[in-house]
Amino acid sequence: MSEVVLTPSSVTRVRRHPERANYRRDTIYGILDEGLICHLGFVAQGRPWVMPAMYARKRDFIYVHGSPSSRMLKTSASGVKICLTVSLLDGLVLARSVFNHSMNYRSVVVSGRAQLVTDVDEKMVAFQALVDQVIKGRWEDARHPTQKELKATKVLRLDLKDASAKVRQGPPLDPSADQVLRIWAGEIPLRVRPDPPIPAPDLPAGIPTPDYAEHYRR
Amino acid sequence: MSEVVLTPSSVTRVRRHPERANYRRDTIYGILDEGLICHLGFVAQGRPWVMPAMYARKRDFIYVHGSPSSRMLKTSASGVKICLTVSLLDGLVLARSVFNHSMNYRSVVVSGRAQLVTDVDEKMVAFQALVDQVIKGRWEDARHPTQKELKATKVLRLDLKDASAKVRQGPPLDPSADQVLRIWAGEIPLRVRPDPPIPAPDLPAGIPTPDYAEHYRR
Repeated sequence: MSEVVLTPSSVTRVRRHPERANYRRDTIYGILDEGLICHLGFVAQGRPWVMPAMYARKRDFIYVHGSPSSRMLKTSASGVKICLTVSLLDGLVLARSVFNHSMNYRSVVVSGRAQLVTDVDEKMVAFQALVDQVIKGRWEDARHPTQKELKATKVLRLDLKDASAKVRQGPPLDPSADQVLRIWAGEIPLRVRPDPPIPAPDLPAGIPTPDYAEHYRR
Repeated sequence: MSEVVLTPSSVTRVRRHPERANYRRDTIYGILDEGLICHLGFVAQGRPWVMPAMYARKRDFIYVHGSPSSRMLKTSASGVKICLTVSLLDGLVLARSVFNHSMNYRSVVVSGRAQLVTDVDEKMVAFQALVDQVIKGRWEDARHPTQKELKATKVLRLDLKDASAKVRQGPPLDPSADQVLRIWAGEIPLRVRPDPPIPAPDLPAGIPTPDYAEHYRR
């Protein structure tokens, strides 16, 4: 059974604002499960690269996928250390002073070496996880990958052994000298919200919008 | 005068889906101006790090700021190459096939070496840019930084010389063999939306919520 609290490494230990750190697996997984994109960092040609990517959390690992010719995937699959970060922005924090302005957020940093998934069955599991991560119910409706499509996709697996969360929530924290100022202070919560679905222009008549699209919620 | 179209380098040239690449300065700046957080990548201790951070675009550069003891800022200020990525998620793209599922997004990758800002006047400009980036009108109301607060903040400047945008918009692209399937296809647009502002618990009575908070829009 997986441990409940992870032991942070030199990468994932939160140094700035350690009071915001959280190493509990359920906190980390909750953030990862809510995210839609990650930012994947790797080193190539002696410099850092940060690329946005889709991902999925499944049990105690993360899948990312893409074209076999992608530099991000080719580099990451070569066994080098990578860093995968997911950030959810929950709100703006308006303090009386500019200095104490902040943001409410939940972020996760995962460090490790990715493994290339070669097993076709696991690739199929990863594909389902990638769809489920974004929109539950869609996998059951959509046309599943063919063998050719599975071959045309590179899938990486990253173990969730070295990961940490950082969370800031709540109101601004002004020193008492600032609290007497006649300046409004507070939070503006932010949320990712869907607009009504837009059917594809080439969608034949008579195909209803499925419930998971009509009432999409994050 | 700045050039209208940037020349991409080996880092910022878009290789995957080059039809989504955009090197126009107005496109790149439009994306940077809409974003609230960036993901900053750097190499330290022989491995990549990706950290979420606030940032501001001002003329032809980007400011990031933080504590002088932050590893991200200390490393970035040492003149090493960094990579700063801003991603805006605009929607989910549901194709008939799992394989052709995608996302609509606008992202910018900036590569370069950051400069430490030591001039106090420029630091003040950066502070204002950082507030304006997030919420216009707030700088005019909030208490401005003191000399002590300016000293307690490290500010970096990154030139927007080597940057590129990547944009996917529009409906799913299914091959004609899939278009005949009786499967719904389309887009679910996503947007960052505010909830009503929450006044700080210690806010004295009689201070009205300013318009820029009451009607915050991204």
